[in-house]
Formats: sequence, structure tokens, C-alpha cells
Amino acid sequence: MKAEDFRFDGHSPCDLTELPTGAGNAKEDKPKYQARTAANVEEMGRLQDAFYADGREGLVIILQALDAAGKDSTVKHVMGGLNPQGVTVHSFKQPSAEELAHDFLWRANRALPPRGNIAIFNRSYYEDVLVVQVHDLQKTYRMPPRTTDVGQGEFFRRRYRQIRDYERYLHENGYRVLKIFLNVSKEKQKERFLERIQIPEKNWKFSESDLKERARFDEYAKIISEVISATATPDCPWYVVPADQKWYTRYLVSELVTQTLRECCHEYPALSDEARARLRECRRQLEEY
Amino acid sequence: MKAEDFRFDGHSPCDLTELPTGAGNAKEDKPKYQARTAANVEEMGRLQDAFYADGREGLVIILQALDAAGKDSTVKHVMGGLNPQGVTVHSFKQPSAEELAHDFLWRANRALPPRGNIAIFNRSYYEDVLVVQVHDLQKTYRMPPRTTDVGQGEFFRRRYRQIRDYERYLHENGYRVLKIFLNVSKEKQKERFLERIQIPEKNWKFSESDLKERARFDEYAKIISEVISATATPDCPWYVVPADQKWYTRYLVSELVTQTLRECCHEYPALSDEARARLRECRRQLEEY
Repeated sequence: MKAEDFRFDGHSPCDLTELPTGAGNAKEDKPKYQARTAANVEEMGRLQDAFYADGREGLVIILQALDAAGKDSTVKHVMGGLNPQGVTVHSFKQPSAEELAHDFLWRANRALPPRGNIAIFNRSYYEDVLVVQVHDLQKTYRMPPRTTDVGQGEFFRRRYRQIRDYERYLHENGYRVLKIFLNVSKEKQKERFLERIQIPEKNWKFSESDLKERARFDEYAKIISEVISATATPDCPWYVVPADQKWYTRYLVSELVTQTLRECCHEYPALSDEARARLRECRRQLEEY
Repeated sequence: MKAEDFRFDGHSPCDLTELPTGAGNAKEDKPKYQARTAANVEEMGRLQDAFYADGREGLVIILQALDAAGKDSTVKHVMGGLNPQGVTVHSFKQPSAEELAHDFLWRANRALPPRGNIAIFNRSYYEDVLVVQVHDLQKTYRMPPRTTDVGQGEFFRRRYRQIRDYERYLHENGYRVLKIFLNVSKEKQKERFLERIQIPEKNWKFSESDLKERARFDEYAKIISEVISATATPDCPWYVVPADQKWYTRYLVSELVTQTLRECCHEYPALSDEARARLRECRRQLEEY
């Protein structure tokens, strides 16, 4: 399987329950995939250097997943090959009072990197159509009736459209938006939760509320499928990546990031003849003193 | 004439050259209009207090105009009646390097007030389709070819659509966007420029580059007409207000702001029976000690 096989661009709907969570046949070639991941991580670093110098495009990598699907470890192991100078990671937690007093895209837009830079969104504004929808949080918002009295279905359909418009706008303004969903199975989630409970160094990653969310696993799967179907476009596709084997997830994500950086502008700015002549003059001066 | 007479909501195109710049018949009733302005400014302050306490809606007032149309003095004399606690004024100047490295709406979105608050944009992202278009500044941008190699016409038509999408998004998320264009005549602009040159306390407001822009007055009028036609909608209309007599401009702008605040949610939050009982208990404690 190649990373492209996990692509959704709006042409066909997404149904999470029918998509693989495991590595399948790839398991037989684990060392090969691990070697490719390492090669990707290296290439990623080289590409990023030119991408940063070029500065014409920006990249936003959105990671969404249910708990324990491996978002944090993907950031650590795949993006660890990037120069932190040109990368920021934003973990979007429960919104603050100030954030809730603004439109829902406000905090993401503030976190948008300058072009030439990469932002990794560990969770994102997609939470505003996921956890918010599952828990009816929009009913607690202080917003005018004209925006909320439209029915729950319409409220979130509008948000889907607003997200599509926003991502198209970003794409037209020089950004690539790479959206990755880490698809973990219910069984694997249980296994990883048990680990977090049993291993003292992992205790801090577990919270009792995780069990409450887990109880709604199937409901989440349904809404996530709907959200992905409604927001996947040719310019800003979703990739639904199996997440039960971390080495495989890392391979696929490394493929996606490397491929996207290859597509972005990544040429070192060319010098004019005049600028080149001045560089020669600078060298002369440097050598003299 | 009422403020509503100057409204454009997309149903008919706007042609600046056909619109009044002067007060017309209203000149006979100048004292009456000045009294109304004073009354509006007072009502505005009362409404704002409840609007702030309510907190369900936000208000963005966009002021656009050619030089010397009276933007600054409108802010001073009309918005001076507002409590500064709930208001911010943003004067958007030439963009910084950091701002140019982002999408063009980025700096405006950062300046968006929390709901319950008012932001006055003295110039705005509309400069990105006005001065940028007149001077072809987009050709100097570091942006990927896929976004710039679409032809100048298409580049700005996209921006018009992006602005419409953005303002609809704001409206759907609890903001009112009040867009006011101060329409000054070429003659009155000349008169005010001469004042700025002759009166020492006004010298700082004049710059030689103002004459270069003035030389393109008619070109600006054409593009402004196009921009207003393309971005006026029923939810986010434009108001093209005559700006040759400042007392008349102030009256009309005071009408527009007051009327918009009346339409916004502005109810003091109601207390539950329980909260009311606790307030009574607080009073009892206060009176006791």
C-alpha cells in the first residue's frame, strides 16, 4: 500500500468502519518500511531547508485522531527530523474563555505559520465539529440566536462549509493543508490505555475522562466519517492512515510529509547578476581583512 | 436623506462617480442634524454598555476612504461616545514583513475583537484589493506560482470571493460587519490637502506621496466601485456616505453605528432564581459587616 491509497479528496464518501486500522501485508516487510521511514525523515530535513529559504509556500499539517492513536509519538518520531527553527507544534486543548469569545477558527488562524514555515496542529479546528458535536457543546456558547437557532444539523453543515472555504482560501494564498487522521481500532486503544495505567511513566497520559470518550467510540467514528467526507477536497484532501502499528503509521506519515514538501516550492532564491557581483565583492573584502 | 439611502447590498452595482459627495438639501437643516448626531452618540454609549454585558455579538466597523475624506475625525467625533473599555481602533498601515509572509486576512483576523466588543478598522483588508490592485503590488509578493499565475483579473476576483466568504463566516459566527466608505470629492480633497500644508498643526498629516495617490483619483474611484459592487451583500452591506461636509458625515455614521448596535443583542444577562437568591444573600452579608 502507498500513502496515496489512503487519500480522500471528496470524490467518494469516507466510512471509517470500513477502513483498515492495521498494517496488513506490510507486516512481513517491517524492516523495509522502517528503513524507508528513516530515509524519508532525512529527505524531509533537506527539503525543509530549501522550503524555508524559498519562503513562497507555507505548510499546515493537521493531525486528528481518537485518544491513544499515536498523535504525539508521530510528531516526535516523524517530525523530529525537521529543523525546529522552521516548525511550530500547536496542541489545541479545551478553548480558553478568550478563544470561546471569538469565531472558532480564530485561534488556528493566529497559529498560522509565516510562509516558508511549517505548523503542526496536534488536534485543530476539527475538534469544533467533532467533540463539540458529540457533546452538544455549541448549546453552551454565548452566541446570538440568529447563529444558533438554525438546528443542530444546519449549524454543523455550516461549519463544514466554513472549514472548506477557509482551507481553499489558505490554499489560494500559498499554503498547503495536509490533513491526516490516525485510524486506531477500539481494541488497540484499550491495549494502549491499559499500558498507560500500568506503566508509571505513562500514567500522566491517562485521565478517567478518556473512558467516557471511549464509551462513545462508535458515535465518534460515525461523525468523523461525516466530517472527512464533507471537508475532503482535491486541493486539501484527507488521509486516513492505519494506526494500530506505530512503525507503519510513521512510515505513511513520513511519506505524506515528504511528498508534500516535494510538491511545495523549494528552490533556493536565485541571485541576480548584480547580487552575485556584490557577493564576490564581499568575499574580496572578507579575504582582505 | 436617511442612512439607509446610502446602502449597497449587492442588488445593484455601485458607481462612485454617480453618488453624492455633499450634504445637498440637508445643508438647510445643519443644526438639526448636529443635534441628532449628539443624541445618537449618547444612545450609542447606552447601547454599548448592554452590548458589552450581553457578549453574544461582536461588531467590526470598517472605514475606507481616499485620503482626507475624514476617517480619523469620524473615529474621534462619532466613536468618542463609546466606552474605550469595549473598543479597539486598528489603523492598518503598510504591511510588515511578518504580515506579508501570511495570508492577507491574517492581520485583520488577529485584530478581531472578542464578542461583546467593538473593533474599528481604520482602513482594512480592503486595501489588499485597492492600493495593491492600483499599484500592482501583488507582483512583488513571494507567493507560489500556482496562486499568482492566474492573471491579474482572476487574482483579485478570487480575493473578492475570499472577502465575501470571510465576512459571511464572521456573520454566521456572531459578528456584524459594518462597512462604510467615506465618499469625498476631488475638489474637497484638494481643499483639505491645502489646509494640511498651510496649518502647522496639520502638517504632519500631509505627505508628498499623497499627491501621487491623488493623481490616480479616477482610477481609484473605478476600482472602489468594482470592489464595493463585488463585496456588498445583504448581511454585510456597504454604505457609501457623502464626505464633503464633516457634520453630515458624522450624522450618517452615527446613525449607522447606533442602528447596528440596536440590531445586535444588547440585553443584560438575566439571572436565574438561584443566582438572584445568592445576590440577596451577598447583600445581607455586606450589610452585616
